[in-house]
Amino acid sequence: MNPNESVIERAARGLTAIRERHPLVHNITNYVVMNTTANALLAVGASPVMAHAPEEVEEMVGLADALVLNIGTLSREWVEAMVVAGRAARRRNCPTVLDPVGAGATRYRTETAQRLMVEARPQVIRGNPSEILALAGGDGRTRGVDATAGVDAAREAAEGLARERRCVVAVTGAEDFVTDGVRACRIANGHPMMGRMTGSGCIASALTGAFLAVESDAWVAASATLIAFGICGERAAAECLRPGSFGVRLLDALDGVTPADLLADGRVRIA
Amino acid sequence: MNPNESVIERAARGLTAIRERHPLVHNITNYVVMNTTANALLAVGASPVMAHAPEEVEEMVGLADALVLNIGTLSREWVEAMVVAGRAARRRNCPTVLDPVGAGATRYRTETAQRLMVEARPQVIRGNPSEILALAGGDGRTRGVDATAGVDAAREAAEGLARERRCVVAVTGAEDFVTDGVRACRIANGHPMMGRMTGSGCIASALTGAFLAVESDAWVAASATLIAFGICGERAAAECLRPGSFGVRLLDALDGVTPADLLADGRVRIA
Amino acid sequence: MNPNESVIERAARGLTAIRERHPLVHNITNYVVMNTTANALLAVGASPVMAHAPEEVEEMVGLADALVLNIGTLSREWVEAMVVAGRAARRRNCPTVLDPVGAGATRYRTETAQRLMVEARPQVIRGNPSEILALAGGDGRTRGVDATAGVDAAREAAEGLARERRCVVAVTGAEDFVTDGVRACRIANGHPMMGRMTGSGCIASALTGAFLAVESDAWVAASATLIAFGICGERAAAECLRPGSFGVRLLDALDGVTPADLLADGRVRIA
Repeated sequence: MNPNESVIERAARGLTAIRERHPLVHNITNYVVMNTTANALLAVGASPVMAHAPEEVEEMVGLADALVLNIGTLSREWVEAMVVAGRAARRRNCPTVLDPVGAGATRYRTETAQRLMVEARPQVIRGNPSEILALAGGDGRTRGVDATAGVDAAREAAEGLARERRCVVAVTGAEDFVTDGVRACRIANGHPMMGRMTGSGCIASALTGAFLAVESDAWVAASATLIAFGICGERAAAECLRPGSFGVRLLDALDGVTPADLLADGRVRIA
Repeated sequence: MNPNESVIERAARGLTAIRERHPLVHNITNYVVMNTTANALLAVGASPVMAHAPEEVEEMVGLADALVLNIGTLSREWVEAMVVAGRAARRRNCPTVLDPVGAGATRYRTETAQRLMVEARPQVIRGNPSEILALAGGDGRTRGVDATAGVDAAREAAEGLARERRCVVAVTGAEDFVTDGVRACRIANGHPMMGRMTGSGCIASALTGAFLAVESDAWVAASATLIAFGICGERAAAECLRPGSFGVRLLDALDGVTPADLLADGRVRIA
Repeated sequence: MNPNESVIERAARGLTAIRERHPLVHNITNYVVMNTTANALLAVGASPVMAHAPEEVEEMVGLADALVLNIGTLSREWVEAMVVAGRAARRRNCPTVLDPVGAGATRYRTETAQRLMVEARPQVIRGNPSEILALAGGDGRTRGVDATAGVDAAREAAEGLARERRCVVAVTGAEDFVTDGVRACRIANGHPMMGRMTGSGCIASALTGAFLAVESDAWVAASATLIAFGICGERAAAECLRPGSFGVRLLDALDGVTPADLLADGRVRIA
């Protein structure tokens, strides 16, 4: 990372690059958010594809600029597909994001997320505090797929996990925390309404794939995503505080947000 | 039920309780409505989780305050997961709702719904008249997943089913009918626009899970749900009579509706 | 086709018929678009059903007025269900639409689409230029599930495919091209915003099922669909050019569009 350029400047540049290059983001994700995720990627300027058949995931990864693995509605066959896709992505240097939805809630989720960390070696893991605590071996106390722990409680776990797995860990909450084990920042963008629609975390993970496709520094890419997405959440909330309308406006904002908006409204501090 | 308190008063109290306790509602439901259902539960104040892997459904039921089984896009593996989850819910006294989507349309749906009645012993079965007739052994004449019979035609079937299965049967239509085999009421809330968006019945079943989590009298919980959801439908329709916008406003209404609204607008009569 | 009646007049008549008869359209489609597709069919006046279990697809086809096969998120079990459903539809003269999503992107998609052409003998194949080129044996150069080739580049491939498979091929793009190998037309309705929401092509295929259910001339039905849907896209775009709001308005437009609108705004020329 060019030390003369801030994370926010890089976020603005990343957004421009997504809209110029339309990176193909291959998602193996959960049923609940497939539609919203695809629409969010399209809105921001990326090109989504969903594919999970073992017969084709390797070939699809070969076409993709980033891979996003999300265990929100996992099952045996889907996990196997994620493993195959994750390995193919490693071989091809296709950057990968892992969203460990619900890790800590059930043993199956925790173990699957841990297995995918090893098999797919994701560049970025994005989760809520409970999920990150669970992945780091702590007690996530996840309640269903919702976070109960605060971001601060997961700070050490995130840093340890980042160092151990040599990846970036993005913990999202009222304030987001992004670390690669050495560098760390806090992002104050976002709005509580984002927690009132299903899949806002999953959208953040998918968008991270889009930024990773155009930004080789994964810590910058993960931070850039949360700045941009957080600003979109603020804009949508400024227009409507009811969850149905908010979801519609959030997609509108992903389309309408400009690099200049990120420069104007990004709120990041090195932690 | 306290005889001095009306069903509408209990509905208002239930809505308050959902917003205070955010009950976790575990859904094993169909692909079509997963997103809408999760958003509806979040909007009303509950906490949704979707999980169907045999490896985790028991553990997830252990965390849940209610279980909702919906056979809208059933397949062998999913039905087995529903059976496992339903049995676990019985053992743990986790209240369960069954939505027999399309019972009567194909033998597989009718038989699966009947099997789930036995295995999961749901506290509430919510369906349209055709589905309830099919479950009761009659000729539902279901056309796809749409109702063709009226609520009145299913009244006797619903009462018989409720007595035989010792559960509450909620038949939804122009006017809803809710019975536990002894008590019965008719609810006149709702709007025809609800039939113009996919999954409004599935949302009703999911919301029933939320009310069941905070209201131990299942007949009250099922009635309360249909009062609250019907009022939301009326409010959304008052703002827009086109189906796309209606769906968005319906989520907004689930968030905005207050206990006082239920007291003011609930239309129930003991039948 | 009555030579004294234009395609646009037939489109208007088809729309009226859909709203009178509410044809049941059985979809075996992808996870991403199930909700949107069901809502689009409901909005236009048809009745959707989604069912993919091998135990029931034959029986469901027996109830259906049209079958739509869409391979957007294919897997082995789903493909087998599509084959069973497609064969049942042939035996029962239930008209079938094939949407070869992503043909050309992976071998598995191309081969599956080719297999379904043979097994299901669809009356209409609707795809983007890349998919049609891939199906015709050319180099579709599909990038993920997005088209990269223009409609003109696929014209010959579409005509050859239509003649070889004795079906109608509808190629959608900036201008749509519909051919049965003898007749051909170009449809200039539509709006670029349709490409900014996921599943607009899938919706077009599902709506084709609705028109096929009420119009025995498959070339007319496919053309009518693209006229009607294109006009809805124009109307939605006239109200909002952001993708979230556009998607909501598109459903509203499918509900609000009238036969008179088609007569006024349809833009077709025999090619």
